[in-house]
Amino acid sequence: MATLTNEQVHNIQAYWEASNYLAAAQIYLQDNPLLKDPLLTGHIKPRLLGHWGTSPGLNFIYVHLNRLIKSSDADILFICGPGHGAPAVLAQTWLEGTYTETYPEITQDEKGMRQFFRQFSTPGGIPSHVSAHTPGSVHEGGELGYSLAHAAGAVMDNPHLIAACVVGDGEAETGPLAGSWKQNCFLNPARDGAVLPILHLNGYKISGPTVMGRMPDDALATLFNGYGYAPLFVRAADTIGTHQEMAMALDTAYERIRAIQQYARDGKKTDERTLWPLIILRSPKGWTGPVMWKGKPVEGTFRSHQVPLPDVREDQDQLALLEQWLRSYTPEKHFTANGAPQAALKALAPIGDKRMSATPYANGGKDAQALVMPDFKNYAVTVNAPGVIIAEGTRELGKMLRDIFELNEQQQNFRVFCPDETTSNRLNAVFEVTKRCFMEHLIDIDDHLSPDGRVMEVLSEHLCQGWLEGYLLTGRHGVFPCYEAFITIIDSMFNQHAKWLKTCREIPWRKDLPSLNYLLTSHSWRQDHNGYSHQGPGFIDTVANKKSNVIRIYLPPDANCLLSVMDHCLKSRNYVNLVVAGKQPALQWLNVEDAAKHCAQGASVWEWASNDNGQQPDVVLACAGDVPTLEIIAAAWLLRKHLPDLKVRVVNVVDLMSLSPKDYHPHGLEAALFTSLFTDDTPVVFAFHGYVRIVHDLVHGRPHPARFHLRGFMEEGTTTTPFDMVVLNKMSRFHLAIAAIQRTERQLEKADEVIGYFEDKLSMHNIYIRECLEDMPDISNWKWSDE
Amino acid sequence: MATLTNEQVHNIQAYWEASNYLAAAQIYLQDNPLLKDPLLTGHIKPRLLGHWGTSPGLNFIYVHLNRLIKSSDADILFICGPGHGAPAVLAQTWLEGTYTETYPEITQDEKGMRQFFRQFSTPGGIPSHVSAHTPGSVHEGGELGYSLAHAAGAVMDNPHLIAACVVGDGEAETGPLAGSWKQNCFLNPARDGAVLPILHLNGYKISGPTVMGRMPDDALATLFNGYGYAPLFVRAADTIGTHQEMAMALDTAYERIRAIQQYARDGKKTDERTLWPLIILRSPKGWTGPVMWKGKPVEGTFRSHQVPLPDVREDQDQLALLEQWLRSYTPEKHFTANGAPQAALKALAPIGDKRMSATPYANGGKDAQALVMPDFKNYAVTVNAPGVIIAEGTRELGKMLRDIFELNEQQQNFRVFCPDETTSNRLNAVFEVTKRCFMEHLIDIDDHLSPDGRVMEVLSEHLCQGWLEGYLLTGRHGVFPCYEAFITIIDSMFNQHAKWLKTCREIPWRKDLPSLNYLLTSHSWRQDHNGYSHQGPGFIDTVANKKSNVIRIYLPPDANCLLSVMDHCLKSRNYVNLVVAGKQPALQWLNVEDAAKHCAQGASVWEWASNDNGQQPDVVLACAGDVPTLEIIAAAWLLRKHLPDLKVRVVNVVDLMSLSPKDYHPHGLEAALFTSLFTDDTPVVFAFHGYVRIVHDLVHGRPHPARFHLRGFMEEGTTTTPFDMVVLNKMSRFHLAIAAIQRTERQLEKADEVIGYFEDKLSMHNIYIRECLEDMPDISNWKWSDE
Repeated sequence: MATLTNEQVHNIQAYWEASNYLAAAQIYLQDNPLLKDPLLTGHIKPRLLGHWGTSPGLNFIYVHLNRLIKSSDADILFICGPGHGAPAVLAQTWLEGTYTETYPEITQDEKGMRQFFRQFSTPGGIPSHVSAHTPGSVHEGGELGYSLAHAAGAVMDNPHLIAACVVGDGEAETGPLAGSWKQNCFLNPARDGAVLPILHLNGYKISGPTVMGRMPDDALATLFNGYGYAPLFVRAADTIGTHQEMAMALDTAYERIRAIQQYARDGKKTDERTLWPLIILRSPKGWTGPVMWKGKPVEGTFRSHQVPLPDVREDQDQLALLEQWLRSYTPEKHFTANGAPQAALKALAPIGDKRMSATPYANGGKDAQALVMPDFKNYAVTVNAPGVIIAEGTRELGKMLRDIFELNEQQQNFRVFCPDETTSNRLNAVFEVTKRCFMEHLIDIDDHLSPDGRVMEVLSEHLCQGWLEGYLLTGRHGVFPCYEAFITIIDSMFNQHAKWLKTCREIPWRKDLPSLNYLLTSHSWRQDHNGYSHQGPGFIDTVANKKSNVIRIYLPPDANCLLSVMDHCLKSRNYVNLVVAGKQPALQWLNVEDAAKHCAQGASVWEWASNDNGQQPDVVLACAGDVPTLEIIAAAWLLRKHLPDLKVRVVNVVDLMSLSPKDYHPHGLEAALFTSLFTDDTPVVFAFHGYVRIVHDLVHGRPHPARFHLRGFMEEGTTTTPFDMVVLNKMSRFHLAIAAIQRTERQLEKADEVIGYFEDKLSMHNIYIRECLEDMPDISNWKWSDE
Repeated sequence: MATLTNEQVHNIQAYWEASNYLAAAQIYLQDNPLLKDPLLTGHIKPRLLGHWGTSPGLNFIYVHLNRLIKSSDADILFICGPGHGAPAVLAQTWLEGTYTETYPEITQDEKGMRQFFRQFSTPGGIPSHVSAHTPGSVHEGGELGYSLAHAAGAVMDNPHLIAACVVGDGEAETGPLAGSWKQNCFLNPARDGAVLPILHLNGYKISGPTVMGRMPDDALATLFNGYGYAPLFVRAADTIGTHQEMAMALDTAYERIRAIQQYARDGKKTDERTLWPLIILRSPKGWTGPVMWKGKPVEGTFRSHQVPLPDVREDQDQLALLEQWLRSYTPEKHFTANGAPQAALKALAPIGDKRMSATPYANGGKDAQALVMPDFKNYAVTVNAPGVIIAEGTRELGKMLRDIFELNEQQQNFRVFCPDETTSNRLNAVFEVTKRCFMEHLIDIDDHLSPDGRVMEVLSEHLCQGWLEGYLLTGRHGVFPCYEAFITIIDSMFNQHAKWLKTCREIPWRKDLPSLNYLLTSHSWRQDHNGYSHQGPGFIDTVANKKSNVIRIYLPPDANCLLSVMDHCLKSRNYVNLVVAGKQPALQWLNVEDAAKHCAQGASVWEWASNDNGQQPDVVLACAGDVPTLEIIAAAWLLRKHLPDLKVRVVNVVDLMSLSPKDYHPHGLEAALFTSLFTDDTPVVFAFHGYVRIVHDLVHGRPHPARFHLRGFMEEGTTTTPFDMVVLNKMSRFHLAIAAIQRTERQLEKADEVIGYFEDKLSMHNIYIRECLEDMPDISNWKWSDE
């Protein structure tokens, strides 16, 4: 256990001072970067932005982690949970040289330093929180709550990695963060790396005190002990003492982690609870900043949250205090006259990939590999004719996922993340080769449970999402199956991940990342037994709002299409793929070859369901989603039967974005192809899986968008039958057939009579119709072509 | 402290048996409700749905709470956290007679019981989880995670109320629930009621074990002690012993709560941490159900989660076991031959309003009162001409909120819920009359902090939302100000609340509820300093997807409109009102009289910004949102200046739903009024606050929707200036003016030249333009009319 030598303390203190200087100066200075001249108003930025409060504590932690890396040669990933912590983290990346390697114009000299200060939180510059632009980062400090989950996802299957995760006491108040402490129950010390949480209590949020900041130490110790941690407290006091305490805490934590890992990797087991280390650092908000201003305390209070001296441009006394504060870090000692960090300082940082700002884990992953994929056609359902056989799409997909686990067993780079629904979602073939992961005590009656399992089931969509993001951002692969209605629990996390991906695509040095794949299998139309609370397809809209170059939305209508789509998604890079496909037994439409072609094109005419013979139809019946597809096909059949003169064309859309003009989304169908499907002016009756809003938007810009008549989920639901669900939402075959008749310009002799017949059917409708298929013909005998 | 007499144990056991019988029978029976005949396949429902696992434990808790109510006369609200717990809760409501009072067709006799069983989780029947249909409920057991937050919201300002909140160990894994344990720091025992959490550990979720279920007792005790609770353990063992333990635990908890309250209400203070009671009940999943089936354990395992004997219709052995199980509850003892509960049983339930199923707290609130509102015009900004003065909308609103606090001081029925942003959102006038609520130790430097504060600040959007919902559902009033991007954190909670409201409107006995009011003040266009992670207007889309009779969306363009809109929202009932309005200094457009008229109509022509003189314009410039309004008005001015022949009409939309056809939303403008604003065929260039998708949808069904050309947020953002934000998203005045010229059919001589000039302005654009208003005319001298 190290007790620091005086020289070590001196060095660490120097490095900390240098980084605190760089942090504070980013907030204030546009000139005079080394304070060679007396500080003048003109040196101050016109608008002061940035968050000082958290920065000195972050620098303190970072500098001490550097010492640990140098002494242990550990691979450490730094996760900066506190929002707006960029002044500190950027200071570190610049000191380590990584910033200059990444952005050569920001040199390690006075000119570069000046530019480094000027760009911070400035129009045209860089954000005030850690972002994709920050070397070494996989975590944005914008929306709070996900740092620990990201840390855990990053260390899964990275046995040598430690994620040092700073959690602010603001973030600690969020639900997702509070729900993350238990994640040690899902990290296997024999297989996975470790998360070292560093809870940084500086007492205040923007204005108010924090809950954990006000909790006494003994209450915190008790709390975290309950969560399975052995907390190590570090309390900021005199500088030397605090350095010693922090070094001791980090060494203790590191040794404890390695001991836990060694024990597990030696195959030893214990009945005792594993207590993981956790460091709790109490330090004043705005530590080392101005202590008082006009009789009011600044350091240690919410007044240090952002810019502690906000009026330095207007108030010469404040300016003088700022100068005094900045000079207290003795920049002249830590930087050469030319503005470079002193050689002695540089020597304190880790080297090359060991620098936290340069770790390859944070940029595409260490030794990232593509998934080895089986041929998805091996899992095809045999479909000799449309609408003959019944299959469960996800059950077939489960077999493919099972084999992906097997094919990638060596790489250990694939996991499924799911809120306790793998079996419910009928993906349970995966349990032939892997299990649910759980580190707590196992008992006889447990079902497919093991510390080595690769299926991460926890009843927290936030953890599933956060872990998966951490796993992907470090170069591995995964799928997130979820009930459709409840995926909206992580709407905002998806938003942030999509923003991260979009930003990465604009940063040349950021490497490709595996896509995030959602599979919404227990979808809104078949939650008839669970009722209205489980019926909500809104995630499609959330996804569609994000930048078109990172999002993809697929609605495969049957099992073979699902296989084709998932094959594509799992091989893709840099996207969020949303796949919505039911798990229930359903009629199958396409053989696997046709399915592959259909999915590749995104949307096609289904000639076997149409009777327009490739001529101009009277009405186009379009559909996207498995339940809408069934209803549209039944509507086409009803129309064929009752109004054989009406020429209908059935178009199925599997890639939702294919509907949009190409300049809006890269998957948009070329105008000619769109016209070949939908014509330019024929009325379209469109049954859609979700809220109809999005389709109205997507076809805006296509020829005559007003002709698209949409039916979809309109927030009507309850505990009922699947068929009643489509009736309640006016998307049943009868509704669609009536709408088609009403929309066509063809004068049809029996139109009113047929509409009356359909309305009768509806008014006395048997809500069991869908389940019993009573009213459906024997589809195997359907004659779709006109011969 | 009560030790139960033998008779009491006997009675409780009888009540529990009767309720367990009713719970199990709801899942299985469609006939033979009293088992008067031997059980036959024909008595079994065709599809078995429902969740047995959690039901006996819920019944156990409920029955014991009844005893406590009878002995103490306490007002207790029952919150059923576990999903799908309806079989138990419904059984209780039926036994108490409330169900029959509420739904007279479900009588308390054999016929009613039969119907009661048949309707459960049946098409056309009632849901399998506690819902708005369930008397006594303010909490739906669909999406998990919010039970504790609802409980806390319900007891705020209800000093006599105890919310007994059952938390399942599945739900306990969610982030929002984990983040709720700390809420005792925000409940004031002198002023508020109490939450009694009852953590019900039955060990399994759908398939996997639960984290807390596997934690040893000492770890749980430690954990909850850290959170500020003194846990009381009850472990299911022999029946009599468990009844004694539970009664003891409840009595202890109740006395402890009353002691804490008495102490606080006597004005006494202590430096010791208050430890609130918490009951941890460990009982087997599917307790008292079938123990084994074919050598596999059922009771106590995940196999009891839903239907423990799923094949009773096909398997006579299973049917026999079911009969044995059901008869083990001795229904013949607990119900009369006619099917009514025995009088002795009935006598055990509380009476009238004291029944948890009949508490007025759960139906509109006890003594609910409308807010006393000041005249919003008192807070008006004086606007003598459009575009002259600058004001901050939320700062003006803050004064109105301050006075609402004062006017309703007696009623104690108004609170603000906010993630630590009240001051940041410039609503800080409220701190003239109230404070932030906090129960922990206060220190000198705290800012407006007090146990009596009515501003609930916690850095958890989930808690803010959950508390507010609980507060509203018990009849009180509130506002939730939030950063726009981060309100999507509670997308799914909003979804569920909107579904609850929609369902309540269909239930005649449900009373009106105050609306849920969101105020998104730190909105996407002015997060220029916080950057891309803070830029996301997607909540508008989430809200718009919900049923039109419960949602309202307002985009007031200036302070007086904001006052008018908020006045309306705070007086409204049964809605979710979404108000998006910036906090930044901004030009003011309307005096308060005009603002009130404008907001009442929803959308109007702004004649002073138009030059069409009420004739047919060449182009309509429309806008919704404060930043889009500024840009549209500037575009109109630019066009006036550079192309005076072009006739432009400016339309401002404050009530977004006014755009939609009236059959889609009740606020939709009548067709004639819509035409009077937008004409039937003039091109419209529309600048919108959010993603443009929704406007494409809303105008679908209006004349010639393809003429609407939208500009809005297109996921471009960074740290930059406000003006650069509108440039990046192609919504700047120049973009809008160019689009207007390009869209009009008028041949304008200088069109190309003017477009070129605007494009030049953009290509060399000064990103500070907006802030400095350099390029804006002195708007006070604008001559808008043509005279």
